[in-house]
Amino acid sequence: MCLKLNERKITMKKLKICVIGIKGGISTVLMSGLFRSIKRGVPAGGLLTDTPLFSQCSLPDVDTFEFGGFDIRQIDLYESALQNDQFNVLRLDTEPEIKEWLNSIPIYKGVTLNCGNAISNIAQNGFTHNHSNLREAVSQVCSDLNDFRGKDDCVVVNLSSTEERFVPSESHLSLEGFEKALDNNASDITPGQIYAYSAIKEGIPYVNFTPSTCADIPALVELSNLKKIPQAGKDGKTGETLVKTVLCDMFSIRNLNVDMWYGTNILGNLDGKILDNSNNKSSKIESKKSVLKGCLGYEPASEVRIDYMKPMGDNKVAWDYILFSGFGGAKMTMTFTWQGIDSFLAAPLVVDLVRLIHLASKKGFYGIQNQFAVFFKSPLNSDVNSLVRQYDILKEWVEKLKEA
Amino acid sequence: MCLKLNERKITMKKLKICVIGIKGGISTVLMSGLFRSIKRGVPAGGLLTDTPLFSQCSLPDVDTFEFGGFDIRQIDLYESALQNDQFNVLRLDTEPEIKEWLNSIPIYKGVTLNCGNAISNIAQNGFTHNHSNLREAVSQVCSDLNDFRGKDDCVVVNLSSTEERFVPSESHLSLEGFEKALDNNASDITPGQIYAYSAIKEGIPYVNFTPSTCADIPALVELSNLKKIPQAGKDGKTGETLVKTVLCDMFSIRNLNVDMWYGTNILGNLDGKILDNSNNKSSKIESKKSVLKGCLGYEPASEVRIDYMKPMGDNKVAWDYILFSGFGGAKMTMTFTWQGIDSFLAAPLVVDLVRLIHLASKKGFYGIQNQFAVFFKSPLNSDVNSLVRQYDILKEWVEKLKEA
Amino acid sequence: MCLKLNERKITMKKLKICVIGIKGGISTVLMSGLFRSIKRGVPAGGLLTDTPLFSQCSLPDVDTFEFGGFDIRQIDLYESALQNDQFNVLRLDTEPEIKEWLNSIPIYKGVTLNCGNAISNIAQNGFTHNHSNLREAVSQVCSDLNDFRGKDDCVVVNLSSTEERFVPSESHLSLEGFEKALDNNASDITPGQIYAYSAIKEGIPYVNFTPSTCADIPALVELSNLKKIPQAGKDGKTGETLVKTVLCDMFSIRNLNVDMWYGTNILGNLDGKILDNSNNKSSKIESKKSVLKGCLGYEPASEVRIDYMKPMGDNKVAWDYILFSGFGGAKMTMTFTWQGIDSFLAAPLVVDLVRLIHLASKKGFYGIQNQFAVFFKSPLNSDVNSLVRQYDILKEWVEKLKEA
Amino acid sequence: MCLKLNERKITMKKLKICVIGIKGGISTVLMSGLFRSIKRGVPAGGLLTDTPLFSQCSLPDVDTFEFGGFDIRQIDLYESALQNDQFNVLRLDTEPEIKEWLNSIPIYKGVTLNCGNAISNIAQNGFTHNHSNLREAVSQVCSDLNDFRGKDDCVVVNLSSTEERFVPSESHLSLEGFEKALDNNASDITPGQIYAYSAIKEGIPYVNFTPSTCADIPALVELSNLKKIPQAGKDGKTGETLVKTVLCDMFSIRNLNVDMWYGTNILGNLDGKILDNSNNKSSKIESKKSVLKGCLGYEPASEVRIDYMKPMGDNKVAWDYILFSGFGGAKMTMTFTWQGIDSFLAAPLVVDLVRLIHLASKKGFYGIQNQFAVFFKSPLNSDVNSLVRQYDILKEWVEKLKEA
Repeated sequence: MCLKLNERKITMKKLKICVIGIKGGISTVLMSGLFRSIKRGVPAGGLLTDTPLFSQCSLPDVDTFEFGGFDIRQIDLYESALQNDQFNVLRLDTEPEIKEWLNSIPIYKGVTLNCGNAISNIAQNGFTHNHSNLREAVSQVCSDLNDFRGKDDCVVVNLSSTEERFVPSESHLSLEGFEKALDNNASDITPGQIYAYSAIKEGIPYVNFTPSTCADIPALVELSNLKKIPQAGKDGKTGETLVKTVLCDMFSIRNLNVDMWYGTNILGNLDGKILDNSNNKSSKIESKKSVLKGCLGYEPASEVRIDYMKPMGDNKVAWDYILFSGFGGAKMTMTFTWQGIDSFLAAPLVVDLVRLIHLASKKGFYGIQNQFAVFFKSPLNSDVNSLVRQYDILKEWVEKLKEA
Repeated sequence: MCLKLNERKITMKKLKICVIGIKGGISTVLMSGLFRSIKRGVPAGGLLTDTPLFSQCSLPDVDTFEFGGFDIRQIDLYESALQNDQFNVLRLDTEPEIKEWLNSIPIYKGVTLNCGNAISNIAQNGFTHNHSNLREAVSQVCSDLNDFRGKDDCVVVNLSSTEERFVPSESHLSLEGFEKALDNNASDITPGQIYAYSAIKEGIPYVNFTPSTCADIPALVELSNLKKIPQAGKDGKTGETLVKTVLCDMFSIRNLNVDMWYGTNILGNLDGKILDNSNNKSSKIESKKSVLKGCLGYEPASEVRIDYMKPMGDNKVAWDYILFSGFGGAKMTMTFTWQGIDSFLAAPLVVDLVRLIHLASKKGFYGIQNQFAVFFKSPLNSDVNSLVRQYDILKEWVEKLKEA
Repeated sequence: MCLKLNERKITMKKLKICVIGIKGGISTVLMSGLFRSIKRGVPAGGLLTDTPLFSQCSLPDVDTFEFGGFDIRQIDLYESALQNDQFNVLRLDTEPEIKEWLNSIPIYKGVTLNCGNAISNIAQNGFTHNHSNLREAVSQVCSDLNDFRGKDDCVVVNLSSTEERFVPSESHLSLEGFEKALDNNASDITPGQIYAYSAIKEGIPYVNFTPSTCADIPALVELSNLKKIPQAGKDGKTGETLVKTVLCDMFSIRNLNVDMWYGTNILGNLDGKILDNSNNKSSKIESKKSVLKGCLGYEPASEVRIDYMKPMGDNKVAWDYILFSGFGGAKMTMTFTWQGIDSFLAAPLVVDLVRLIHLASKKGFYGIQNQFAVFFKSPLNSDVNSLVRQYDILKEWVEKLKEA
Repeated sequence: MCLKLNERKITMKKLKICVIGIKGGISTVLMSGLFRSIKRGVPAGGLLTDTPLFSQCSLPDVDTFEFGGFDIRQIDLYESALQNDQFNVLRLDTEPEIKEWLNSIPIYKGVTLNCGNAISNIAQNGFTHNHSNLREAVSQVCSDLNDFRGKDDCVVVNLSSTEERFVPSESHLSLEGFEKALDNNASDITPGQIYAYSAIKEGIPYVNFTPSTCADIPALVELSNLKKIPQAGKDGKTGETLVKTVLCDMFSIRNLNVDMWYGTNILGNLDGKILDNSNNKSSKIESKKSVLKGCLGYEPASEVRIDYMKPMGDNKVAWDYILFSGFGGAKMTMTFTWQGIDSFLAAPLVVDLVRLIHLASKKGFYGIQNQFAVFFKSPLNSDVNSLVRQYDILKEWVEKLKEA
């Protein structure tokens, strides 16, 4: 069922959005929030693609979106939406139609082969496939993707839980190696890679919003170039890291030396629970820590903590303490506290990315789209970490498209 | 006495720096810090002009600087330097030569005509002139400037206490009006304006690091254009406002709406004591508040407090609380605490400005130099408040100079 | 209509609670919250009188409470309750009966004689009396009080907006002077004093939860002693000051010297709007500032700011910065940020006070009840400001009562 | 050499203070700070025992103290004092006699048998004994203690690095078991236990300021009872935990439910470096976490982080985030930031404890002195964690002594 709520746009082309991890917080907040904004005719809020820069870009309207996706848990979408809006921002209780709408969205059973302990712990019987090998899993995912896509345009976006930290092997370094690994049912091909491979193979643009290593392995970069399919990633930049990547510019422009940057993050949602597992957490911390060097050009003493504290719910609080030195070596400090609702910070970035990768695809761009770095903590194929500089790159790309 | 500590550069051209308010915190920290860095052969720290961008610009070396200036207080420079480095950053007690050096710097008695209560309260008998009228004051200042300058290059920089909030009159709107006001000994020509007028009239580049209204009145802009003398200002951007003008970019690039920005500043130095007077404080608050609109393009509910708390000494702490809304109208907050040593944040900016206005002058630029906006809270002739955008403008100017 | 929701306690004695400012935030949150907790059979939350210490004290049950009161605004109670629970804590939308219940509560028109500008600005035509003089006002209030009380026990509690800062005159220093001032229609008898006088005169225990000067003027202390009626006050200790009065004990017990205590409070509710008027604000600031000396035994440099920032709504955020010195004179700092929902912090204290003053009255106590100091920023007749010490005093009183 | 700087008190009885870890931060700051305060005739600062409560207790004057102790590192005391006063609080560079004085203090080689990796890593050749077994170590320590003590009164205080987390065995549960373990050269008798055993055996009062398990094992409690020697401990309460144990009273007295308490500590001194080893850190975290249950009576979700960040130096910053619920279940938060100089917070507590255990000893008290709980994070034999309640206990003890 399409988000389109009236018949005005009946002839518009749909954009199908296939979400890996469709029952999660970002996904359900995103879908509910769009539903509500379209119904009330108010802006969704927080969308960069709603600013004037993008006004003549023929980006797909949000009311042409049609959602579907994969998951491994039992909960229904409406229930998950309620749980993930614990602060009642969207007042879902006052939106009677949304329950029916959410529960009509097509959901496919997810892949759990090689997913690691933390994730297999949240998978529920009857809501995952018991694939006997990787080829079977790929074949299932491809078939589901085609079933969902039909004859419409489609985008795949990965919003699933962070996978374990990853050491690439021969399986990942070339497409040939990857195919061989699939044949051999290798144990180091993760679900994230299976989805990414299947999407790109079927010709569907792909966005990785998580820190997991998916389409960014050399094998799948090769595939996306071969298939001429755009991909973007990785790890949405929504909170503490977002702040870091603007503050660093201040220290640089004032030539103040950052001696130390300590940050701690507390959160209580499912994302936090998965990250409470050290193998999964290290993927994320690596992603968060790398930006300092990227922004400053040198590496101060630094630490990033992520702690799962259940009572926080979807609220995420980051506290950062920065020690810097200036004239005469004088030591000074800055601290900040960021208190955000995680899913609500992520959701609009996902909408932006879906629209932009679709645009890139339509315009013939393929392979890694590093002009979308502004959305990511670990932008692929880019050493630009400053938010403003990342924005400048996106702006230039958009302006060139408009001129063309 | 020149900062040059050895004979290596005996043939280099001196740059004379005339500081209004030479006994204040910024000035004494600046001079002591440069002395120490030159003597030890270490970078001064916090100088933008020490970054590679400026490496082929023929900026004057800091060891060609020779200081002098005006003041209205009795304290000697060494004593003031000790008091203003209460955290003992510069370890002045371990620099025996500095006392003699500082106390050999020429100091001229300051002007107090029309200076307002807060400032006249800190002026001390025998350390100001008792000019009977404005023309006499101008004539004295011009003579002192020429005495100090001799045959060398010179720059005037205003580091004196913030003057009272200012409503311009006919006296300020044209050079003709200003000259008439001088003749009539008008009560609305302030000391800051007398120094600025004298400097520009004598052909000396002028920088206003304070929020006071000085060379930026139309009359003196006219004069600086007429005399082909560059001027820059105003109000050095060192702390809370500095942070604001990078964080705003983050909210804009994420299309997060800033609903409210509340900030409070506590400080205990002489600057704070003068600002404790409401007429003087309003000059500064006006300067601090304007940047939000400039950066965001709209005006959130906002408040800026400045409170003088003597026990803080030269330590300045700002606490800002920002309420913003995002996807679905979700309300979120960010707070930051900035703990800086005020004079140490300001001093390197003054060095940068002295070097750059000298460069501008040598290259034939005159009138308001808005390419130096990156250093100011209220950049003259510029509606660019974003720190990064201001930096880009400076960079472009420097790069053009280097190409030329 | 009584809060009692079933017939189980039909024979219990009612306690009538007459609220000055019944349409305000504290009052509507208090009534709605009690309704909900009784209906659901869950504790109201935050009540000291629900702790074991009070278990054998024969305090009145909350389901014997019956509310009524005075106000000067038009809004109905349900609408005000909705507005004052902007974070939807009480989920009033899911409580259909509460609207009817709230709107059946008797409300009497309020007194505005000598109320000052800030308060007269929020008074609405048709919802106040146009008394021609003080005696008329007193007579009306007494009549309304008796109408509401009927034959039941009753308590009056002042939750109205903070009145202007007050300088006592002959009118306030003795009962005789007060009566004369009423006869002469003096301009310095405030509404708060009229309500207090009327309540005590009619033999009703009285609690002042505001910083206004009401029953604590010598004239009314005299009256409460004469009439043998207990009174308690003043200014509920709910947030920043609450924290202060525990932290001070820490500094004292460690013999750390507090050099400076700076605090700023931002809030956006009606209370904040009234306090945005400097005459009204000074009442509150005086109340907040006095505790440091009371707790520490000396007076550090200190400042308390209260700023009305509309977007904050009922959220109140305090930021305090404390500079202290220890061994060898070492300077150290502590800061805290308190983020509370103002009405929800105040409401349970009001319930505690209502129950306790009723108990005091039943047990024959009269005049100022300083054993209730634990609830107040400016406890009457008490120089004990430490929260723990105040609690000890209350505890001792309760334990003695239980033994008796 | 005694701290006594003039001959006025030549006949006063000395108090010898033997410090385990005498070259550490607390110890060198303590000695330097006392030297300076005595020389200048100013209070040391931060001493509870300098408050009026203790004025008639015949506590030993600080100028009767004579220091000595054990260590395992090479650095000399003056050098260590300079390093540990990085903020130059004590201006040691302006105290020429202190170098000589510090370097005349007798230092004995320390014990490293069974000390664990983190500590053995900082031990330096030539500055520890290579004892071949426990009995040899005990015999050496006893001989050194007697050498240092001579005929004077003496107190032993443990200020050494935190030992690894400890699981007690038969070796620790009885004095007999302990003696047997010494005979058998058991691997689970730590240096901290060897010092404690030796001190008590030789009849010297003993204070454990660290979180290590030392005299508090049943075997040594038995010994201190048998020998009639007082002991006190453990883990000085100087920062984050200090604040916790006053704030908890506030939540209790307001009946606000603490849902979650998250705290993180960053520090850069040697203490921090040792705690960076997870076995050592867990001793400390256990000590820090237990207070919440002790103060509140229930256990909220909680986490305590300690992170070693070298650039922090001796500065220790704790950030705590507390989530609590009140009336109607409303969720609110409090955060605090504590910025203290670790050694300067600890030093005065050590002085207090030395004086008080000496007093206890003189008055015939022996075994665990739980009336000194106010100084400790993990007070032995006490379930009182509230700072104010702990103070009340000490006060009562002192007042009884004064009456006697």
